[in-house]
Amino acid sequence: FPSRLPQVGTTIFTTMSALAQEHRAVNLGQGFPDFGCDPRLLQAVTAAMQAGHNQYAPMPGTPALRQAVSDKMHALYGRRYDAGSEITVTAGATQGILTAILACTQPGDEVIVLDPCYDSYVPNIALAGATAVRVPLTPGSFAPDFAKIAAALTSRTRLIVINTPHNPSATVWSDAQMRQLEELLAPTNVLLLSDEVYEHMVFDGQQHQSAARFPGLAERAFIVSSFGKTYHVTGWKVGTVAAPAALTAEFRKVHQFNVFSVNTPMQAALADYMRDPAPYLELPAFYQRKRDLFLQGLQATRLRPLPTRGTYFQCVDISGVTGMNEADFCRWLVQDIGVAAIPLSAFYGDGFDQQVVRFCFAKEDATLLAALERLKKL
Amino acid sequence: FPSRLPQVGTTIFTTMSALAQEHRAVNLGQGFPDFGCDPRLLQAVTAAMQAGHNQYAPMPGTPALRQAVSDKMHALYGRRYDAGSEITVTAGATQGILTAILACTQPGDEVIVLDPCYDSYVPNIALAGATAVRVPLTPGSFAPDFAKIAAALTSRTRLIVINTPHNPSATVWSDAQMRQLEELLAPTNVLLLSDEVYEHMVFDGQQHQSAARFPGLAERAFIVSSFGKTYHVTGWKVGTVAAPAALTAEFRKVHQFNVFSVNTPMQAALADYMRDPAPYLELPAFYQRKRDLFLQGLQATRLRPLPTRGTYFQCVDISGVTGMNEADFCRWLVQDIGVAAIPLSAFYGDGFDQQVVRFCFAKEDATLLAALERLKKL
Ligand SMILES: CSCCC(=O)C(=O)O
Ligand SMILES: CSCCC(=O)C(=O)O
Repeated sequence: FPSRLPQVGTTIFTTMSALAQEHRAVNLGQGFPDFGCDPRLLQAVTAAMQAGHNQYAPMPGTPALRQAVSDKMHALYGRRYDAGSEITVTAGATQGILTAILACTQPGDEVIVLDPCYDSYVPNIALAGATAVRVPLTPGSFAPDFAKIAAALTSRTRLIVINTPHNPSATVWSDAQMRQLEELLAPTNVLLLSDEVYEHMVFDGQQHQSAARFPGLAERAFIVSSFGKTYHVTGWKVGTVAAPAALTAEFRKVHQFNVFSVNTPMQAALADYMRDPAPYLELPAFYQRKRDLFLQGLQATRLRPLPTRGTYFQCVDISGVTGMNEADFCRWLVQDIGVAAIPLSAFYGDGFDQQVVRFCFAKEDATLLAALERLKKL
Repeated sequence: FPSRLPQVGTTIFTTMSALAQEHRAVNLGQGFPDFGCDPRLLQAVTAAMQAGHNQYAPMPGTPALRQAVSDKMHALYGRRYDAGSEITVTAGATQGILTAILACTQPGDEVIVLDPCYDSYVPNIALAGATAVRVPLTPGSFAPDFAKIAAALTSRTRLIVINTPHNPSATVWSDAQMRQLEELLAPTNVLLLSDEVYEHMVFDGQQHQSAARFPGLAERAFIVSSFGKTYHVTGWKVGTVAAPAALTAEFRKVHQFNVFSVNTPMQAALADYMRDPAPYLELPAFYQRKRDLFLQGLQATRLRPLPTRGTYFQCVDISGVTGMNEADFCRWLVQDIGVAAIPLSAFYGDGFDQQVVRFCFAKEDATLLAALERLKKL
């Protein structure tokens, strides 16, 4: 039978993590922490299981978790989402993104994505039968190019996908950029999918500019968030999607026939745990220190760091180091130097190669230092 | 924007569970146990979390869990699935079913489903852009009607979905019926989606006839299984899909961009726990006793039970009790009598009403007795 996703292979993250294991490399490729989460969070899961919370959660998520998310978004971003009709718990952010795209697009629709972007967006659009329109971010700065976005808008544009803080470039959108997007979309019916899974990793005193802060964006937006990234439990696969009631109604139609509901004890634990703002308020300082540790070590290498404003990723310029393209460089790096990284070309539709690779610094200091020791050999 | 699933409302299970709560009814509607699971299984999750298994699992599932599933299927059904390339862990059976349908169908393809069927199949087919062709099971017996299935096969038929033990009718397919399907499909390229989530709930000394037992079926089949149903943890949302390598390759392309991976500590716990066959080998006797307890109580009511050969569902004939249609009867039953049930019409495309409703007997004996006490008032 013909493949539904003929262009798709195994994700670069899976490939690189497998290579890292095979070559006993330090894995700074796939984005995940190599340290543990708060033991209180684990205790809360155990308590929830022992209290008998092991059967189907309500389809949209437990009321307690949805209310906690609503309260937090209100406190941080100033918009009140109705916990009953505007917030849905998902089996991770990736499931939320596919579900939103399936729910709001039809064959014939166009969806704008900004290259480079997370590698699930375009296959998700293909699964919905819609057409991805790739608009490049500005080379070098990775800033949105609003003239190019405006030129890509057509009468068939149903949705635009943005991501801030941005994976893989580690840039964050400014208030002014969000306002520009708001203005651009104001005269249109275009919906917005705002991937904000790194919302709590923004550095140097900046603020995360959630789409929820901008009424003209929020009214048309699915806002995607991730507990796994915020609380160092990427393997729990719990996220949320916040959207106005009319969008959420369509979202849930698809959600209920995709996963139906999400892990109950983890939801119960997260609902309790997230009432304490300290863990996410401390996250910027926690990761900024790791970023700076890694940056300092990079000075002793031939890799030239790009600015990291958010996320737990550090991009580096490899030009002049080996002359290889990004993908070959990463293969060589993991095999011969013993450090896994991700080539930025993996995030582009056309494999654009700008001699930049991405490291994940969500790692124990010892892991980062071990990687830096190896990178000095370059 | 136009709805992607215009015909779809909230699932009957969500609606009925909400009504049950509102009216403090005994909930025999949505299928889930109201008792706890084996405490050893909870301890295994706690141990896995404390051992640090909280980051992304490998995309297709942990090797240990896939190997355990492979070994179990080999022991029970005589077919060896390669753990590396033929088994994928899913975020519950429902996600496995959508993923399989998205992976193997295209717009223009036809998918045969046998009415009555689980309510996610047809919306899943719609999301894939394919066309559902509903073939009725034989009225009364719910046996597959192979002449009708044969008549529904066209050059565009890509897939047929079967389900044994069968929800909602509680029938199970016989060896002869599976062979008939095997013969019917032999000259075709039609794929098979075999929903076997109740595989361990087969009564009266019968055997579950997995598609894995029939080479002509297995070679074209996605076989869907559920840990939640087998181990009384429906809220954990972990299932598996076994399929030949070529089918699994396409399945995983979609899976990795749907949920990417599945809850890590639950996978670790299940991999350990399922090495002990006792829990699933004891399940038929465990549920048969509950079935018989419920059946006995029904004798004192005006409801006439249909045979239950498998699953944890008991269907009853309501004709002559009130004269209402099934849906009205269930609404009245939950509101005025205080027992939630599911109308069989919810499982039919055309809402066919045969005066039969479904109870779930995966409940504490006390719950079943409380429901029976109320049902006597009919
Ligand atoms: C879901 S695996 C990829 C993790 C991640 O977000 C990344 O490395 O970019
Ligand atoms: C996923 S909720 C429905 C549970 C179930 O399988 C049923 O009640 O039929």
